[in-house]
Amino acid sequence: MREADVVVVGGSAAGLTAAITARRHYPQKKALVVRSEEKVLIPCGIPYIYGTVGSPDKNLIPDAALEKNEIELLKTTATGIDRENKVLKTEAGDVKYDRLIVATGSKPVVPPVPGMDKPGIFTIKKEIPYLTELQKKLADAKDVVIIGGGFIGIEFADEINKIGGKNVTVVELQQHCLSLAYDDEFCAEMEKNVAERGVNISCSAKVSEIKGDGPFTVVIEGGSEITAEVVILGIGAKANTDIAVSAGLEIGPTGGIAVDRAMKTSDDNIFACGDCAEKVSFFGGKPSRLKLASIATLEARIAGANLFGLRRESPGTVGAWSTAVGGLAMGTAGLTEASAKAQGYEVVTAAAEGPNRHPGCMPDAVVTKVKLVFEKGSGVLLGGQVRGDASCGEVVNEISAFVQRKMTAEDIAMFQSGTHPALTASPIAYALVNAAEMAAGKMRSA
Amino acid sequence: MREADVVVVGGSAAGLTAAITARRHYPQKKALVVRSEEKVLIPCGIPYIYGTVGSPDKNLIPDAALEKNEIELLKTTATGIDRENKVLKTEAGDVKYDRLIVATGSKPVVPPVPGMDKPGIFTIKKEIPYLTELQKKLADAKDVVIIGGGFIGIEFADEINKIGGKNVTVVELQQHCLSLAYDDEFCAEMEKNVAERGVNISCSAKVSEIKGDGPFTVVIEGGSEITAEVVILGIGAKANTDIAVSAGLEIGPTGGIAVDRAMKTSDDNIFACGDCAEKVSFFGGKPSRLKLASIATLEARIAGANLFGLRRESPGTVGAWSTAVGGLAMGTAGLTEASAKAQGYEVVTAAAEGPNRHPGCMPDAVVTKVKLVFEKGSGVLLGGQVRGDASCGEVVNEISAFVQRKMTAEDIAMFQSGTHPALTASPIAYALVNAAEMAAGKMRSA
Repeated sequence: MREADVVVVGGSAAGLTAAITARRHYPQKKALVVRSEEKVLIPCGIPYIYGTVGSPDKNLIPDAALEKNEIELLKTTATGIDRENKVLKTEAGDVKYDRLIVATGSKPVVPPVPGMDKPGIFTIKKEIPYLTELQKKLADAKDVVIIGGGFIGIEFADEINKIGGKNVTVVELQQHCLSLAYDDEFCAEMEKNVAERGVNISCSAKVSEIKGDGPFTVVIEGGSEITAEVVILGIGAKANTDIAVSAGLEIGPTGGIAVDRAMKTSDDNIFACGDCAEKVSFFGGKPSRLKLASIATLEARIAGANLFGLRRESPGTVGAWSTAVGGLAMGTAGLTEASAKAQGYEVVTAAAEGPNRHPGCMPDAVVTKVKLVFEKGSGVLLGGQVRGDASCGEVVNEISAFVQRKMTAEDIAMFQSGTHPALTASPIAYALVNAAEMAAGKMRSA
Repeated sequence: MREADVVVVGGSAAGLTAAITARRHYPQKKALVVRSEEKVLIPCGIPYIYGTVGSPDKNLIPDAALEKNEIELLKTTATGIDRENKVLKTEAGDVKYDRLIVATGSKPVVPPVPGMDKPGIFTIKKEIPYLTELQKKLADAKDVVIIGGGFIGIEFADEINKIGGKNVTVVELQQHCLSLAYDDEFCAEMEKNVAERGVNISCSAKVSEIKGDGPFTVVIEGGSEITAEVVILGIGAKANTDIAVSAGLEIGPTGGIAVDRAMKTSDDNIFACGDCAEKVSFFGGKPSRLKLASIATLEARIAGANLFGLRRESPGTVGAWSTAVGGLAMGTAGLTEASAKAQGYEVVTAAAEGPNRHPGCMPDAVVTKVKLVFEKGSGVLLGGQVRGDASCGEVVNEISAFVQRKMTAEDIAMFQSGTHPALTASPIAYALVNAAEMAAGKMRSA
């Protein structure tokens, strides 16, 4: 029988990182990754297949990291777990493990709306043949509807629009696109940006039915209809727990595999990480539905380190991520003002903006705007949002660091940032620090 | 007699920020800035006057912030302080103060080398007429020598080279340019980059004399000579303490105005901040010679907040800054490996690199490389360096945050970063976290 000290089911961001971490922490242990995919897609890169990058084959997580870290790879489908005998069942036969890491990811959500499960209506599956099929359908389509205006929806819409000659519409249930990640003023700016690039955006629009068999008619509650040859669902994902459920592992309140802060499941020899695992929030430890590759890799670094002894515990998910459409980038970390209030926090917020170069006539200067959300009383940062150019992808990580270290408005007002004329705002106009200073002022006068 | 509750001498980064901070913290107090300049230059922007930006008048700190914060401005030269009567003496008459903030900046260092003080040899004075004169001289010059290969020297060289038709040479005393800020491997890469752009770089070269009266002959120890119509000294700056010395304020060990952690001088009613003030290092509290606009504004936010009661104390200067030449940007925060060792630290270092986009075929992808320096034993981060594209200006601020919060390699290995295909590395290849993970591994096996 094939065997390894550490067997990982799943070869995407979580599985790969867990295996690498296991090898780093326990170099004497043999590690094996079992995955069903011939090649593994970069999950966040999927929208870019359709415009910027050009094909699924250009959007792959390279297998080189497996070889470099001396991790064995078995391409087959896992079918079950014999926990008593510590054996992973696969289509290629049994694999004995000492420790098992389940990193089976997620599956697209398909809401119970009449017609939404029709063949020909696409979800965002992380499968090359499926996504290639979508690419073929898009080539001939004139009208495309994307249901769901989150990151994936917005990014898909813009990329498909880049192909040219298409009429692309995003249909979003909420009042704004991206509203789980940003406060309204940021959402509105991104919507305007995407609309100006030629994408139709329809918010507060609930799909009540999808009629036809291609072309489809998307029926919006209230009566309006949009016809499209291609309909894509980008509504979200749910934990893929099939193998865990069949093995009798406990499932958590949001439907993920139940894990403790060490990422250990209800079986002492089995860990879980990534989209398939249950999560708790950094803010108060309540169950969290966030699913991000960056969270998956953190959990993988925890699971991989803890396999043969407790070394790391999850502080809960902060949630830091970013997006970019055209020249406009936005990032968010932690709680928005709206989500903080919804969770019962009393908050003090402040926003500051300024050019991201100094002087403002330096090339590539755009306005960076930062909004920070603090807990009233403690003054601790709960979250922040930023808009500007590509650097926002890293500004949001500064904010994430501030959140994770529970910094107060006063602490951030005292932050020592490096600045440069060609790279950042001036030290006088550095928006992050100024927003904190303004919030600190509001707290003093409150 | 003119009077204000808060009088600030100096209108550059420190003075302006101190006045704004005073108004934010004590909105009922009247604030007045006294400065000798008609217009104030952005100090870090001075090199860009000569190429990218085009003229000193395009590199100004706008006065709008004074008006917006209702700060009075008096354009005159301060000549002395009557501490007993709390009066600032100026060429425009006496100004009574309740609290005085000295933010008189720095003056260029001119080393005692024969000929270096000749008229026609330029230093980096923050004065528009002087810099305009330099611009005129450069217009006619064919050969230009810049003595000093720090940030300013490198940036000046590249900008002057952009004018075209010139032969620009940087002469650096140390083995590498930028060696106070970066370890050798980073310095060497930037030197190569600058050289490939057409600038001559001569390291380990000590100027022994400057001969002639224009054109000048720069004589290097050992015998070689470089002739140039324009010679620029970019060697460093020393605290401008004239007014403080004449008023009998205490001076610190590196020549700055002595201050406590609240930025208060030896006179309870007088504060100092910025290049003119003495500094201590974040690492061990020893005297620090670092002079950066970003440090100046931090000190200004401390001084301004403490004028009428202790609200903030300086943790000492971390030192975070960045530079960019052509498409290559580099940032540094805290101690380099070399400087940490020189200060007696035992260190563990690790470097990681990867594309700053995912997949690597996304537009604008370049390699981001991060090197982190940890204290052995405690595992606490002492500093980090990064090379890559413009985002490095913010990556270095993530590193600065990690340093300021005394995060360990383990803490950083658990950092929750946001990632995006068009903006950052993948979460699997995020260099900052991977470098920390590698360093943590070295510490475990040590």
